[in-house]
Amino acid sequence: MSVSRGIQFFMHPGPTNIPERVRLAMARPAVDFTGPEFVALRDRNLERMKAILKTTKGFVITYAASGNGAWDASVANLFSPGDKVLVPQTGFFADRWAATSRAYGLEVELVPTPERRAVDPEAVARHLAADTKGAIKAVMLIQNETATGIRHPVAEVRAAMNRVGHPALYLVDTISSLASYDFRMDEWGVDLAVSGSQKGFMLPTGLAIVAVSQKALAAHKTARCPRCFFDFADMMRANKDGYFPYTPATTLLRGLRASLDMLLAEGLDNVYARHRRLAEGARLGVAAWGLKLCAKEPRWHSDTVTAACVPAGFNSDDVVKTAYYRYRMSLGVGLSKVAGKVFRIGHIGNINELMILQALAGCEMALRDVGVPVAAGSGVAAAQEHFRATAPKLELGLERKVA
Amino acid sequence: MSVSRGIQFFMHPGPTNIPERVRLAMARPAVDFTGPEFVALRDRNLERMKAILKTTKGFVITYAASGNGAWDASVANLFSPGDKVLVPQTGFFADRWAATSRAYGLEVELVPTPERRAVDPEAVARHLAADTKGAIKAVMLIQNETATGIRHPVAEVRAAMNRVGHPALYLVDTISSLASYDFRMDEWGVDLAVSGSQKGFMLPTGLAIVAVSQKALAAHKTARCPRCFFDFADMMRANKDGYFPYTPATTLLRGLRASLDMLLAEGLDNVYARHRRLAEGARLGVAAWGLKLCAKEPRWHSDTVTAACVPAGFNSDDVVKTAYYRYRMSLGVGLSKVAGKVFRIGHIGNINELMILQALAGCEMALRDVGVPVAAGSGVAAAQEHFRATAPKLELGLERKVA
Amino acid sequence: MSVSRGIQFFMHPGPTNIPERVRLAMARPAVDFTGPEFVALRDRNLERMKAILKTTKGFVITYAASGNGAWDASVANLFSPGDKVLVPQTGFFADRWAATSRAYGLEVELVPTPERRAVDPEAVARHLAADTKGAIKAVMLIQNETATGIRHPVAEVRAAMNRVGHPALYLVDTISSLASYDFRMDEWGVDLAVSGSQKGFMLPTGLAIVAVSQKALAAHKTARCPRCFFDFADMMRANKDGYFPYTPATTLLRGLRASLDMLLAEGLDNVYARHRRLAEGARLGVAAWGLKLCAKEPRWHSDTVTAACVPAGFNSDDVVKTAYYRYRMSLGVGLSKVAGKVFRIGHIGNINELMILQALAGCEMALRDVGVPVAAGSGVAAAQEHFRATAPKLELGLERKVA
Amino acid sequence: MSVSRGIQFFMHPGPTNIPERVRLAMARPAVDFTGPEFVALRDRNLERMKAILKTTKGFVITYAASGNGAWDASVANLFSPGDKVLVPQTGFFADRWAATSRAYGLEVELVPTPERRAVDPEAVARHLAADTKGAIKAVMLIQNETATGIRHPVAEVRAAMNRVGHPALYLVDTISSLASYDFRMDEWGVDLAVSGSQKGFMLPTGLAIVAVSQKALAAHKTARCPRCFFDFADMMRANKDGYFPYTPATTLLRGLRASLDMLLAEGLDNVYARHRRLAEGARLGVAAWGLKLCAKEPRWHSDTVTAACVPAGFNSDDVVKTAYYRYRMSLGVGLSKVAGKVFRIGHIGNINELMILQALAGCEMALRDVGVPVAAGSGVAAAQEHFRATAPKLELGLERKVA
Repeated sequence: MSVSRGIQFFMHPGPTNIPERVRLAMARPAVDFTGPEFVALRDRNLERMKAILKTTKGFVITYAASGNGAWDASVANLFSPGDKVLVPQTGFFADRWAATSRAYGLEVELVPTPERRAVDPEAVARHLAADTKGAIKAVMLIQNETATGIRHPVAEVRAAMNRVGHPALYLVDTISSLASYDFRMDEWGVDLAVSGSQKGFMLPTGLAIVAVSQKALAAHKTARCPRCFFDFADMMRANKDGYFPYTPATTLLRGLRASLDMLLAEGLDNVYARHRRLAEGARLGVAAWGLKLCAKEPRWHSDTVTAACVPAGFNSDDVVKTAYYRYRMSLGVGLSKVAGKVFRIGHIGNINELMILQALAGCEMALRDVGVPVAAGSGVAAAQEHFRATAPKLELGLERKVA
Repeated sequence: MSVSRGIQFFMHPGPTNIPERVRLAMARPAVDFTGPEFVALRDRNLERMKAILKTTKGFVITYAASGNGAWDASVANLFSPGDKVLVPQTGFFADRWAATSRAYGLEVELVPTPERRAVDPEAVARHLAADTKGAIKAVMLIQNETATGIRHPVAEVRAAMNRVGHPALYLVDTISSLASYDFRMDEWGVDLAVSGSQKGFMLPTGLAIVAVSQKALAAHKTARCPRCFFDFADMMRANKDGYFPYTPATTLLRGLRASLDMLLAEGLDNVYARHRRLAEGARLGVAAWGLKLCAKEPRWHSDTVTAACVPAGFNSDDVVKTAYYRYRMSLGVGLSKVAGKVFRIGHIGNINELMILQALAGCEMALRDVGVPVAAGSGVAAAQEHFRATAPKLELGLERKVA
Repeated sequence: MSVSRGIQFFMHPGPTNIPERVRLAMARPAVDFTGPEFVALRDRNLERMKAILKTTKGFVITYAASGNGAWDASVANLFSPGDKVLVPQTGFFADRWAATSRAYGLEVELVPTPERRAVDPEAVARHLAADTKGAIKAVMLIQNETATGIRHPVAEVRAAMNRVGHPALYLVDTISSLASYDFRMDEWGVDLAVSGSQKGFMLPTGLAIVAVSQKALAAHKTARCPRCFFDFADMMRANKDGYFPYTPATTLLRGLRASLDMLLAEGLDNVYARHRRLAEGARLGVAAWGLKLCAKEPRWHSDTVTAACVPAGFNSDDVVKTAYYRYRMSLGVGLSKVAGKVFRIGHIGNINELMILQALAGCEMALRDVGVPVAAGSGVAAAQEHFRATAPKLELGLERKVA
Repeated sequence: MSVSRGIQFFMHPGPTNIPERVRLAMARPAVDFTGPEFVALRDRNLERMKAILKTTKGFVITYAASGNGAWDASVANLFSPGDKVLVPQTGFFADRWAATSRAYGLEVELVPTPERRAVDPEAVARHLAADTKGAIKAVMLIQNETATGIRHPVAEVRAAMNRVGHPALYLVDTISSLASYDFRMDEWGVDLAVSGSQKGFMLPTGLAIVAVSQKALAAHKTARCPRCFFDFADMMRANKDGYFPYTPATTLLRGLRASLDMLLAEGLDNVYARHRRLAEGARLGVAAWGLKLCAKEPRWHSDTVTAACVPAGFNSDDVVKTAYYRYRMSLGVGLSKVAGKVFRIGHIGNINELMILQALAGCEMALRDVGVPVAAGSGVAAAQEHFRATAPKLELGLERKVA
C-alpha cells in the first residue's frame, strides 16, 4: 500500500474543501439544542442566509438532510399528484430533479437544450406561451449545472416568464452556485430556491436548504403530495418558537455559523469575484492545453467547476483515475451523457490561486500519462500569468500594510 | 452575561455526548467519496452495523438525514395509501411515528397502553386476532420510549404476533436503544428497524439508519407511497456498486467508523452492562430523593434515560431550567402528556459513573432550589454505594494490572 | 483491559484541564512565525500578559520550555556564582528552586517555616536585617505552594523587606497562582515573576514565562552565570524586532491567545472570585468528611489546590490510586514530606461547580473503599449548599435574561 | 485587508507542516502524566526514537523545550568551562552552536569551510592531528545546514577522526535531517545527537531531543558546567521510574506517538527515498529557471531544503515577501552571509509531489513579479517530468489494487 503523505488535494466540485476553521467549529462537544445559545445561533444563521439569498420576504428552512433532500421538499410541499412542471434540460442534475418530480406523481414537460449550451430563455417562453390552459404549475431551473460546468440564465428566464405573463412558480436549484455566484431571490422573482451545505457553504454534506417565497407558501397550503420529514408547515411552526420539529443537526449549524462568518467577512461581491478570477485561471489553463471546455461559449462558463473535454480517442475517466492513484488528487468524472468525455476541476468555496495551479499541474501530469498531447507546464503558465496580472499590487518595503 | 467555564455537562437523552475521539475523527478534511478508502470504510461500517443489529440477512441503509427521516423511509417504502398499521401507544415518539404514517395516507389503529406502563403483548395479540381480514399490514413498536423512560418488550410482541399467526410486518424503532440495549433483528423477526446516529452511536444528528429484512424488501416492491430521497431501491442499487445515489454524509460515516471501533472494542455485552449499571445508579439516586420514576415497574425501566416525576405542585420544567441556567447542566424536559411532570436524565452512550454522580448532584441542587424536599447529597450517596459495590476489584499494589 | 468511556476527570493541580476552545485553537496548521499575523499575535499576547501580571514597566519573556525552565532563567540571568539568595522554605517547590540556585553555584540561605503554615514575613525580615553586609542578593518566594495547598503572603514579604530597607531583588514564583489569584508585580515591588502555561493559563505544558523589572534587568547586565537558551538579552533583542532568537512555540502562543481571550472576557476579578468560590466548596467538602487540610489556618488556604490529610494509619496514595483505577479520576499525590499523608484536588483554571461536586463524589468513593470513615455524600452535600447559596439568582420565567 | 482563503501553503524549512493526524492527536484533553497510559506511551516513544536514531546503546532524552535547547543541553552536560571544542564552519546554525559553547565558557576552534561547500573531513582530521595534547574534547558537526541547504558528511568525519585516532567526543546536530535522512548513531560512532520536534518529526516546536552514548555519559559525570533544567542525570533518574523530573509536554509526546506511527508505517527507507525524490523535483525546477543552488555540487544537496540563489542585482527577500504577501505562500529567507542572496523552499516532513509543484508555481510568479527572468511554468514542467518518471506504475483498470 502506498502512503498518503502531505495534503490530499480535493478538487472535486462538491462536496468540497472544508476550511479548518469550519471543521474545528464543528469539533466542539454537543450543544443543548433547546438552550438560548443554540436558538440564537440558529436565528442568526437564518437571518444571514437571507442576506446571501438576497431575500427579505422569503423564509429559509434547513433540513438535516443532504442537498437533494431539498428536491423532495420542493416537490412534496408545492404540488399535487398530476400537476405539470416545466424542466429545462441542462443535464444530469436537471434530469434528477425531473425524476424526483415524477416519483411524486407529477408530469414533467422538458425543454430540450442543445448540448454544451445554456438554457435559452426564449425556449422556456415558447413552452409557457403554448400552455394556454395554465397546466404548468412551475418552471424548475438549475442555476449551475455541476455536471457540465454550464451556467444558466436565472434572471433571463424570469424575464421570459414575465414576458409571456405565465403564473407558474419559479423554482431554482442553486446547489452549486449559492454563495459563489450572485443570486437575487426577491429581485429575480424566485419562488423557491434549493441549496445544500456541501458546496459554496464549505460544509460537510448534511444540510438541505430551502428558501420559500410567500407565493410558494400559498401553493403549499393546497398541495396534496404526502410529506412529513420535509413538511414546510412543521418546520415553520417549530421554528417560530425557536425550535425544530425534530433534533436539528447542531454540529452542522455551528459549522454554518463559521462559514457565514467567513463569507460575510470577505464580502459577497469579493467572494463572487474570487470565484470568477480563479475559474478564469482554470479555463486559461485548459485552453493552453488545447482542450475544449464543455460549455461552448464563454458567457456560459461556470465559475465553480470547469469541465474539460478530452480529445476523441481518450477516456476522461483515465485522467481522473491517474490523478487520483498516481498523484493523490481528486477530480470529478464526467456524468451521464458526458461520461468518459470530460473531467471536472472543482473550484468552489475554500480555494485560492496556488490550489488552482497545483490542480493544473496535477492534471497535466495525468493527461500526459494517459497520452493526451499537452505541453508540461503549459496550463500552469497560462494561469500564472492571469493570476499575476490580477493580484493586488504589492509595494515592496510597504508590504505589511498590504497584508 | 455569565461565563461558561469548564465542562458543560450535557445529560440529555439525545443527542448525547460525542466522544472526543469521534469528534476528532470527523474534523479531518474532506475525503473523496468515490475513492477506495471511503468505499472500504462504508462497506466495513455497514457490515459492522449488521453485527450490532444482530442480522445476517438484513440490509442496512444509512441516509444523510436525522433519525426521524427513518420514519418517513419506513412508511414510504413499505406501504400504499390506505394501508392499515397497528401502533401500540407508548407516548410521544409512537404518536409521531403514527402521525408520519397518517401523513402518507395510512390508516393507524392504536393499541392503548395504560400510562407509565409498557406495552402489553397480549393487547397487541388481541388487535391482531381481531383483524380476521388481514387489513393490518404492520405492527410498529418503539423499543425504548425516550419521553417516559420506558422499555417495551420487543421479543414478547413478536412472540404474541406469532401466537396469533398474523402475517403483519414487524417494524421497531430502536432510536434510543440500539447499541445500548440488546436487539436481535433476525432472532426476533423484526422486518424493519429504524435508528439514528445521535444516541447509542454517540454521533451528531445526521444519519438515519434503516435495516430491512427480505420480507420487508418484498413488500417494498409493491408499495405505492411516493418516495425519492428515501427510496430503498436507489440506495440498494447504488450501494451495490460501492456508491450512494447522492453525496453521502462522509463526515458522519467517518465518525461512525470511530464509534463502531469503540463499541466493538468494548464488546456489545459490556456496553449493555455498562448502560444497565449506570442507569441503576441514576434510579437509586431518584429513589433516595423519594421521587417516583415514570415507569411503574422495574422491569420497564429504561437503561438509557431516567424520567423522574416531581411531586404534585411542582413544575419539572423549573428543575430543568434551574439546572441549566444556574449550574450549566442540560437535562431533558417532560414531553406531551408528562410535560411539567417529569424531568429526564440521559445516560446513553459516552457516559461513566462520575458523570452520573455529577448529574445527580446537579439535580439535587436544582430540586432544592425550586423547593422540592430532597436531602442534599442523598441521591449521590445512594448511587455511590451502588457504583462502589459493582466496580471492578482493585488490589492495591497491583493496580497497574487492573488498568 | 477496562474501557475508558465518557469524560476522564482530571482534577490534578497542574497540568490541568485545557478548554476545548484552547485545544482547537492549537489544532490549526502551522503558521508562519515570521509573518505579520504571528508577530501581531505575539505582541498582543505580551501586552495582555502584562495586564495579568499588573505591570506596566516589566518586560515579559516566554520561552518554549516547561514552567520550571523559568527557574533556570531566573537564576542564570540575575546572579553570579557565589551569590547568596534567601529562600523561605515552603515545601517541595521552594526546595527545587533552591536546588536550581545551588546547581548554578549560588549559596542558599533558607528561612525555616513551621509545617502546614505560611511563610512569616517577620522571619524573612529577621534574616535580611541580620545581613548587614548585603550578601543576600535576592529573596525567592513561592506564592502558592502546589504541594501543600498553602498560599504565601507576597505583599507582606515585600512590606517586611521594605521595613528593614534591604536592597535584595524580590523573585516570586507564581506558577500555580498567576491568573487564578491576584498578583500585582509593580505595586508589590516584584523584580522577577516566574510562571508557566499549564496552570491558570489552561494550556499544555510548554511555555516558561518570566516577567522582569527594570531593577532585575540592571542586575542581569552584570550577572555572570552562563546562559544561552535562557538568555534575557537575546530574547529582548529579537523580540524588539518582532522575532524570537529561535523558533517559537507558535502552537502554544496561539493557544495563549485563546486563553487570554477567555480570561479577560471573564474579567480578572471574576476569575479570582470563581477560584475562591470553587475552592471554598472543595474545602467545605473536606471538612464535612472530618478530614484536615494541610494548611493550618483558613487565611493560608490555596484557591487553586486543596490538600487533604488522611487520618493516621491510612496511606493517601491508596486514595489516589483507587480514584484513578476504579473511577478514572486523576488527583494529585502528596509530595516529599507529605507523601502518603495528603491527597490533592486541583481546582485551577477551567473548572466549575459540577466538576468540584464530581471530584468530591469520586473522592468519597475512594476514601470509603480504602476504609477512611467518611459518610457517603457528605462532602458533596456541604459543597452543594455553598454553591446554591452563592450561585447567581435566577428568576424563573425570566431565565433567558440571566444566561 | 485581503482575505486568506483556502490552504495557506507553508513551504518553510522548519517548523514545517504538521499532519492533520498529528494535530488532532494533540487536540485531545489533558492526560494524567503519572498514569500508566502515559508512561507506556512515553516508553514506547523513546524505544521507537532509538530505532530512528539507529542506536541500541544510546539513551534518548526529550526536553519540553525548543530544538536549540538541545544545544545548551549538549554543552552544559558534557563539558567544563575552558574545554576546547572543534566546530566545522557550515554556516548560521554551526555559528550558533559555537556561540552556545562560548556562552558556557568553552573555547571554540573553528574549521573553516569554503562557501557553498560541505565540510571536508580531511580538514577536520588535520585540526585533530595538530591537537597533540588532546585539548579538543569534541567535534561538533551539523548534518544538514538548514540555512544553505548543504548536507555534511557525518560518516566520513567519523572515519577521519578514527584515522587520526583522536579520542574527542563526536556531537552531531540532526535538527533538520533526522527522520528525513539516514542517520546511524551507533555505526557512525556519534556520541551525542541533538534534534527537535519541528522538522522531520512533523510536530510543533517544543521538544528538544538529545541522544547520548555511553561514552558521553561518562564525560557527563565529570563535566562541571552548571545545568539544572537540562541536566541529564535528573532526566535519567526520573525516566527510570517512569516519570519526568518535571511536568512533561504531554501534548507533544502524544503528537510524537502519532508521528512515529506515521514514519514507521511508511518505513524509514521509504521516508528517505520520498524526501530525495521530492527534493530532486525542487532542484530540477530551480535548474530549469536557470538559477544556481547554494550547494556547489550535487553530492552536497540537501534533501530537506533547497536554497536557490537569485541573480546578482536582485534581493531574495523580495521574492519571499512577494510569495507571502501576493500569493500567501511561506518560504525561508536567506540567513547571515547569504541574506538577500538565497530563498529557501522547505520540503521536509509532511510533503508530496503536488505540494512541490505548487511551491515551484508560486516561486515562479514571485520571481517574475520581482523581475528575475524565469520562464512561466518552466520549473513546474521540469519537476513534473521527474515526478511522472518516478511515480509508481498504474495499470488502468487495476488501479484499486495499486492504491
